[in-house]
Amino acid sequence: MATAQAMPMQRAVNDVKAVCEALATRFGERFQTGRALREQHAHSTTYIAAELPDGVFFAETAEEIQDVVRLCAEHRVPIIPFGVGSSLEGHVNAPKGGISIDMSRMNRILEVNAEDMDCKVEAGVTREELNHYLRDTGLFFPIDPGANATLGGMAATRASGTNAVRYGTMRENVLSLDVVMPNGELIRTSSRARKSSAGYDLTRLLVGSEGTLGIITALSVKLHGIPQAISGGVCPFPSVEAACQAVILTIQMGLPVARIEFINALGMRALNQYSKLDYAEGPCLFLEFHGTDSGVAEQAETFGEIAAEFAGGPFQWTKAEEERQKLWKARHDAHWACIALRPGAKALSTDVCVPISRLAECIVETEADIRESGLVAPIIGHVGDGNFHVQVLMDLSDAEEVERAKAFVSRLNIRAQDMGGTCTGEHGIGQGKRAYLEREHGRGVMFMQVIKQALDPLGIMNPGKVLPDDAGQDR
Amino acid sequence: MATAQAMPMQRAVNDVKAVCEALATRFGERFQTGRALREQHAHSTTYIAAELPDGVFFAETAEEIQDVVRLCAEHRVPIIPFGVGSSLEGHVNAPKGGISIDMSRMNRILEVNAEDMDCKVEAGVTREELNHYLRDTGLFFPIDPGANATLGGMAATRASGTNAVRYGTMRENVLSLDVVMPNGELIRTSSRARKSSAGYDLTRLLVGSEGTLGIITALSVKLHGIPQAISGGVCPFPSVEAACQAVILTIQMGLPVARIEFINALGMRALNQYSKLDYAEGPCLFLEFHGTDSGVAEQAETFGEIAAEFAGGPFQWTKAEEERQKLWKARHDAHWACIALRPGAKALSTDVCVPISRLAECIVETEADIRESGLVAPIIGHVGDGNFHVQVLMDLSDAEEVERAKAFVSRLNIRAQDMGGTCTGEHGIGQGKRAYLEREHGRGVMFMQVIKQALDPLGIMNPGKVLPDDAGQDR
Repeated sequence: MATAQAMPMQRAVNDVKAVCEALATRFGERFQTGRALREQHAHSTTYIAAELPDGVFFAETAEEIQDVVRLCAEHRVPIIPFGVGSSLEGHVNAPKGGISIDMSRMNRILEVNAEDMDCKVEAGVTREELNHYLRDTGLFFPIDPGANATLGGMAATRASGTNAVRYGTMRENVLSLDVVMPNGELIRTSSRARKSSAGYDLTRLLVGSEGTLGIITALSVKLHGIPQAISGGVCPFPSVEAACQAVILTIQMGLPVARIEFINALGMRALNQYSKLDYAEGPCLFLEFHGTDSGVAEQAETFGEIAAEFAGGPFQWTKAEEERQKLWKARHDAHWACIALRPGAKALSTDVCVPISRLAECIVETEADIRESGLVAPIIGHVGDGNFHVQVLMDLSDAEEVERAKAFVSRLNIRAQDMGGTCTGEHGIGQGKRAYLEREHGRGVMFMQVIKQALDPLGIMNPGKVLPDDAGQDR
Repeated sequence: MATAQAMPMQRAVNDVKAVCEALATRFGERFQTGRALREQHAHSTTYIAAELPDGVFFAETAEEIQDVVRLCAEHRVPIIPFGVGSSLEGHVNAPKGGISIDMSRMNRILEVNAEDMDCKVEAGVTREELNHYLRDTGLFFPIDPGANATLGGMAATRASGTNAVRYGTMRENVLSLDVVMPNGELIRTSSRARKSSAGYDLTRLLVGSEGTLGIITALSVKLHGIPQAISGGVCPFPSVEAACQAVILTIQMGLPVARIEFINALGMRALNQYSKLDYAEGPCLFLEFHGTDSGVAEQAETFGEIAAEFAGGPFQWTKAEEERQKLWKARHDAHWACIALRPGAKALSTDVCVPISRLAECIVETEADIRESGLVAPIIGHVGDGNFHVQVLMDLSDAEEVERAKAFVSRLNIRAQDMGGTCTGEHGIGQGKRAYLEREHGRGVMFMQVIKQALDPLGIMNPGKVLPDDAGQDR
């Protein structure tokens, strides 16, 4: 690229000092190098060790980011985009140092096109901010990964969550991205048209690229109509298999569930304790239906019949908002409920996704593995897509336990891959799952590396993420 | 890539003769060079002139294609994948000669996973073959671009069609691709998991790449449950604007229409004449609803109310299969009906897609443009997505008229782009729309070219398609 080729030879070394000085001079207090702030911008939630950036830049415009990228390119300094830091696989760590670009001040909602049911926002807008802004339009943005993540971060990690079974993931809901590419050029990847066959799908290439191919500065996303009516409920099952069979039949029948969430026995115990509820402490499904008044009643009744076929039930459902909110608040609090199972522990939240026909087998084997490993680890899943999470509760000061947890996660990734699935359904590769990428994609990883090398020849965009270090070395 | 780098210098010229000899020796009658067959494998449907390949290879396995790609790479000979030749923008032409790889013998259905609602097929399977095969499973493959195209071709051109508003396009329905890459390596782009955040989205990069980045040899696609009940009908409107307003409200209300098709006054006249019907000869919407028995009735009634709000109607709908079949047969025959408007004429079918808020304006301006251009050109659209087609009926022997048609198509592409849309919603770029790509994507085209150059450094994969020749030359 132009920037790369025009580079004088004498500058071809990482000179982070020069970059920091230039940023401090130009941006003053919007560039920070204090340790506490840098720690906050490094990943420190799980057993992945925090690796601090050299400085944090609070960006306000795409043009500033272009300038910073050009400056970093000139001095071979890594750039790490940062939303709210809710990613789970070390995405915001700075293993080679560099500049963390904090997007939180780029939080303007640029346009809402109600007739087209889309909007354009800056990358630092969080999903709750967007939905708050939309509250009077009759529209909402459905993707809900749990955390109040930024839309830019969600696009970068191809996030999804509880609603994906009905509304899709970020892959399906991003219409277009504004991206600062590794040479500092700003591109828009697509028009706002709902569909297009015009050229390579740069949008989808960048969704899920985790900041390694460019920095998302703004995005157009699809919105959806707030349904006229919502019903929801909880249904216990005698076994994991029974619950999964009910899920399969629900999906096969084309019942348009908005959410269909699995929680295993240990997870239900955690929920009951934390939220003071009295659900059955066996495998349960949480469901939500969106539609017309009669439609959501019909759907709930149909699901009740499906559940009964597999000895599940009773399916207690309601259209009353207060009860529904209580139910979904409990589901949303599951992360904290699980952590409370073991006070003082840290939760490692990992996820895999398998074809739904293998889901019961995968969960049952994983529960056995957890037992045999002596770990405390409830399972919660977006099972309509075959996706589930394991929250491994660890005492991080116990090195042996951390090793056991790592070994368990490794077996889980391999189990999912061996069942025709993926080592991550929605958390991304980051640093934590790089070792499993080649096992899943084989030589495809080499072509990913070819693309990375072509678009980011200097390797400055979020280095040490997604791709294994040696991928493509044998080309 | 390995192949490219290992290439001896003396072979760095196009030596199609050597390739043809080697293919004839190895494959006998499965390699053909007769003119009639080569003509059939070149594009000759519109004003884009046919450009013949040097030979046609009937592939039977991915391994054979790997060998042919390696052979062509060695001798710098272009490769043009060929499904059934139903693409519309010159995709199968061979402007630089080369070998057409006919996929029609790779038509095995490799697996159907009913519980997972997916299947894996070889690239030469057509959508009708697949649906015929699935007829006893309760499942179907919904994407219907009109022609009985191959699934490989549909993936390569990011096809969609009438059902896309409900079921998505090939972008949303392809789970994974087997692809022979330009260096001869065979990769699988993804697992069968419904969603994944594991690495770059090679699947979506290759969907819509029109054979310029690799040859799709097999694909896993999503299937959907055949709905319990279907209702459908036709609704006349007093104006294009009224019809489009009804579409917008229908989508905004979240009515899950399976099909919502617009036909303008001239198109309705063509349909009536061709299929001996007596619909109103003004703007009409054709609709189809999928769901439960009560659901499809409720949806149809709701749509009737929406139509009435915009002075449309009466909306005559039915659940009776025979009547529905008659209605959709008429819609499916629209292509032939339009051609029959002007006996002896050739139809140039072009398509654009705009944000739905601009749809009425775009269609009305386009109708005026057609009138002022003195062309005969009915309009038919998948309007739930903002996508519409213009069938320009031309006398190809009249050079002046062909020029007028070309100028009209040019204005149409630019009009759609200026309204925030795309120069092609589902037909692809091919040769015909290359001139409009940069106008739509700006510098994004340069990054597409970087990717093309990185993955296909020899430029042998379907050259002269998608990207303008000079894109990226100023890097």
